[in-house]
Amino acid sequence: MKMMTSQTYTLEELTRTLGATLHGDGAQRVSGLATLSDAGPDDIAFLANRAYQRFLGETRAAAVLLPPDLVSECPVSALALDNPYLGYAHLSHLFAPPLAGHRPGVHASACVAESAVLGKDVSIGPNVVIGEHAVIGERTVIGAGCSVGEACSIGSDSLLHANVTLYHGVIVGQRAIIHSGAVVGGDGFGFAHDGSAWHKIAQIGGVVVGDDVEIGSCSSIDRGALGDTVIGDGVKIDSQVQIAHNVHIGEHCALAGCVGIAGSTRVGRHCQLGGGVGLAGHLELCDGVQITGMSLVTNSIHEPGVYSSGTGSMPNDLWRRNAVRFKQLDQMARRLTRLERDRDRGTSQ
Amino acid sequence: MKMMTSQTYTLEELTRTLGATLHGDGAQRVSGLATLSDAGPDDIAFLANRAYQRFLGETRAAAVLLPPDLVSECPVSALALDNPYLGYAHLSHLFAPPLAGHRPGVHASACVAESAVLGKDVSIGPNVVIGEHAVIGERTVIGAGCSVGEACSIGSDSLLHANVTLYHGVIVGQRAIIHSGAVVGGDGFGFAHDGSAWHKIAQIGGVVVGDDVEIGSCSSIDRGALGDTVIGDGVKIDSQVQIAHNVHIGEHCALAGCVGIAGSTRVGRHCQLGGGVGLAGHLELCDGVQITGMSLVTNSIHEPGVYSSGTGSMPNDLWRRNAVRFKQLDQMARRLTRLERDRDRGTSQ
Amino acid sequence: MKMMTSQTYTLEELTRTLGATLHGDGAQRVSGLATLSDAGPDDIAFLANRAYQRFLGETRAAAVLLPPDLVSECPVSALALDNPYLGYAHLSHLFAPPLAGHRPGVHASACVAESAVLGKDVSIGPNVVIGEHAVIGERTVIGAGCSVGEACSIGSDSLLHANVTLYHGVIVGQRAIIHSGAVVGGDGFGFAHDGSAWHKIAQIGGVVVGDDVEIGSCSSIDRGALGDTVIGDGVKIDSQVQIAHNVHIGEHCALAGCVGIAGSTRVGRHCQLGGGVGLAGHLELCDGVQITGMSLVTNSIHEPGVYSSGTGSMPNDLWRRNAVRFKQLDQMARRLTRLERDRDRGTSQ
Repeated sequence: MKMMTSQTYTLEELTRTLGATLHGDGAQRVSGLATLSDAGPDDIAFLANRAYQRFLGETRAAAVLLPPDLVSECPVSALALDNPYLGYAHLSHLFAPPLAGHRPGVHASACVAESAVLGKDVSIGPNVVIGEHAVIGERTVIGAGCSVGEACSIGSDSLLHANVTLYHGVIVGQRAIIHSGAVVGGDGFGFAHDGSAWHKIAQIGGVVVGDDVEIGSCSSIDRGALGDTVIGDGVKIDSQVQIAHNVHIGEHCALAGCVGIAGSTRVGRHCQLGGGVGLAGHLELCDGVQITGMSLVTNSIHEPGVYSSGTGSMPNDLWRRNAVRFKQLDQMARRLTRLERDRDRGTSQ
Repeated sequence: MKMMTSQTYTLEELTRTLGATLHGDGAQRVSGLATLSDAGPDDIAFLANRAYQRFLGETRAAAVLLPPDLVSECPVSALALDNPYLGYAHLSHLFAPPLAGHRPGVHASACVAESAVLGKDVSIGPNVVIGEHAVIGERTVIGAGCSVGEACSIGSDSLLHANVTLYHGVIVGQRAIIHSGAVVGGDGFGFAHDGSAWHKIAQIGGVVVGDDVEIGSCSSIDRGALGDTVIGDGVKIDSQVQIAHNVHIGEHCALAGCVGIAGSTRVGRHCQLGGGVGLAGHLELCDGVQITGMSLVTNSIHEPGVYSSGTGSMPNDLWRRNAVRFKQLDQMARRLTRLERDRDRGTSQ
Repeated sequence: MKMMTSQTYTLEELTRTLGATLHGDGAQRVSGLATLSDAGPDDIAFLANRAYQRFLGETRAAAVLLPPDLVSECPVSALALDNPYLGYAHLSHLFAPPLAGHRPGVHASACVAESAVLGKDVSIGPNVVIGEHAVIGERTVIGAGCSVGEACSIGSDSLLHANVTLYHGVIVGQRAIIHSGAVVGGDGFGFAHDGSAWHKIAQIGGVVVGDDVEIGSCSSIDRGALGDTVIGDGVKIDSQVQIAHNVHIGEHCALAGCVGIAGSTRVGRHCQLGGGVGLAGHLELCDGVQITGMSLVTNSIHEPGVYSSGTGSMPNDLWRRNAVRFKQLDQMARRLTRLERDRDRGTSQ
């Protein structure tokens, strides 16, 4: 992408904004943000992960944001900060390209129900549909082609990118960001079996999404069967995630791409689920649990910590030999026990 | 979600509707449906899973739907029924909030091809696009922003929620429900390799979806390469499911979220696939197979029953030690066999 | 799907088109393409996979496309070709049903920004939204309900099916096909933690999609944090795939359904990822790597070849016994070593 950004900042300005300590010329101007190895003489770079420290000596950046103890190794101007990654997060917004984007107002092609309530300075894009009694908070942006169902409520300063779908009665907090293709409030997967066929259970609960939540592209969050599916404040959800009915996600959790969580499971606060993790239904995870990528969790977890399942990858021929043995593993364990018994008998004779 | 429902029912009415046996005051009115622990004095609750039996004694519900043998333990009015979960399914529709929803008619912003045929009392929402020669059955609802391709056929009493996409020539039965973001009839993943690059194989088959099928949010069902992809009557498909070209799913199967099925695999009737299950291509699963969550199936299954793969999750440090050993498993098995041989030799000496 | 195709071809014409060798009557006409077992007397069939050779003797097809060494076993006319699967790929386009489809022009309901540049003979469908400064190449088709963001660039002869979303600044090459529900350019999953909450990192990179790329239904490709996410020429991506920020996919790779790739990973050229494969972040895979379905890769791979992880599926009761032992595997390995030591000591005594 080649988009021009016209913003430039002095190192002095950036230092003040970040609360950093400047080592170098505060009047120097930078116009871009880049990695240590990609940065040119008009860019500011950052060093947050020490694995990249080897690129510091040769950087062509105008300045580098880094932790205080690395200032002495920095060949160019340095902005010292205890958490340079957080500093990078702040800088990133300063250098984002300006978009013509979203002007306040309701596009002529949008269908907004008469009973809907639109806050001040909302921006309603082309072909948006907003249902009866929906409430949209101030300065909230609803992108092209979004469908906001009856009686939804979206807080202020939120952003729905193009082609998001909210079913009826979905509640979204302030400063939420929902990406394209995401669906919030679809029916949970609830059916009763009569011995020969499935009968649908009406999903009469809702979805409550807290403040400062982000939901990635093509993710789906189902409405509750009875009672609500709840996404706590500050939760960050990546793309292609599926959250089933009546799940509760505690505040400030991070769920990476392709996570799937089955019905009624409760995830504590500050948990992190790696990409492709699956949680079975009706579990409880306490606060502070981390699950590594593609692990399946079928039991509740009551201790914070890092959990995993699966096997590492290996060349296929080696894997085939080992995977066959996995099917004999219980047998192997029994044979091992027998050998130990025989040895002990032998020894004791 | 706080949506008012104005419906109230007497226990007498509900008992008759369900074919249950009433123990209590038939004139008592209830206005809501809730779980045993959440129910208040105007609600009816249900006890279907005996794991929740401990909540029965303290329920504040007006009445409880439960199996006959638990009537004596119920502190309030009881509606006895052999399959209370099925009874709950029926009740759930009575207590679903009434939505202004879908009025019959074609919204002014919809683009309906002249050659399309719309049944009586269809409801075509805002910004819907319906292609040439498409046929929409009576009372079927097409939600806002849906795209229904050329020559599609949708049976009567079906419901497409907002932003569903059907490609050309997709056939959907009666009483189907398709959730937002779902895509039916996209091209299967078919390419021939010429030694240096991939050449697309036109996907000239279709998709046939039976009666009473439900398809979850953001799920995708690809059209056949030659011949059709087929979803049998009564099949229930959760969110984020991927069904590849020429797959056949037998009647009354249930596929939980994030399932992926590769091309040309045939799943029998009454199968259940847990969340995240993967089926390799060109397999056959007989009727009545259940696969537990996140299992990978790479061989056909000819016996009904429950199948699984993978490893349970455990603390990461324990997992690391064990996962390393998995790579040595075949070696371990050979060492074990050698030990047994040596022991037997020792014994026979 | 029952769609009539009016095209018929003589075997002579097809032979010439494919560069095949004809054994039979060149004047014979065929009107359809089918598998060996489904083909009728007006169809041409193909035999590419020798597993299906048993159907050759009984085929009712008018002619069969097959490798030269099988001509003698073919009971009907034969078109001999070294790569019959590639020949089938070419034929498939000849027999695809003709759709009324996409006429050049801009539909009256589309919202095209004044500064957007539309190439000759583009087709812009109903309810499409095209942002400022977007450039759409000649003959490219944008399906109903698509949203093409500000400053996007799409090459000539590309096809976006209905309801595709491109965020701002996404670059797509020529002859690309993007299926419904796909989202390209959504924000990568980037947040910095301040000890109590996550802070969003603006994703200021873009996405560059090469020529001849296909992207499946409901797939998502995130924009770069800094610098671009890059999909090389000729890459084929199936449905429900998630590609995170700053991933690079080398030319002519094939990614099957439900693949997930974490941030900054680089996949070489001509790699194949099976369904549901997960790649951790910051890895490098060299050219020519194949990963089998549902494997998790957590380390870089420097040798071409086939790699796998996981365990095969088995009956659940057997699996339970083995999965429990997996948790004891390191212990078992140590017990085995001890037994060997004891044996060796015993032998040496």
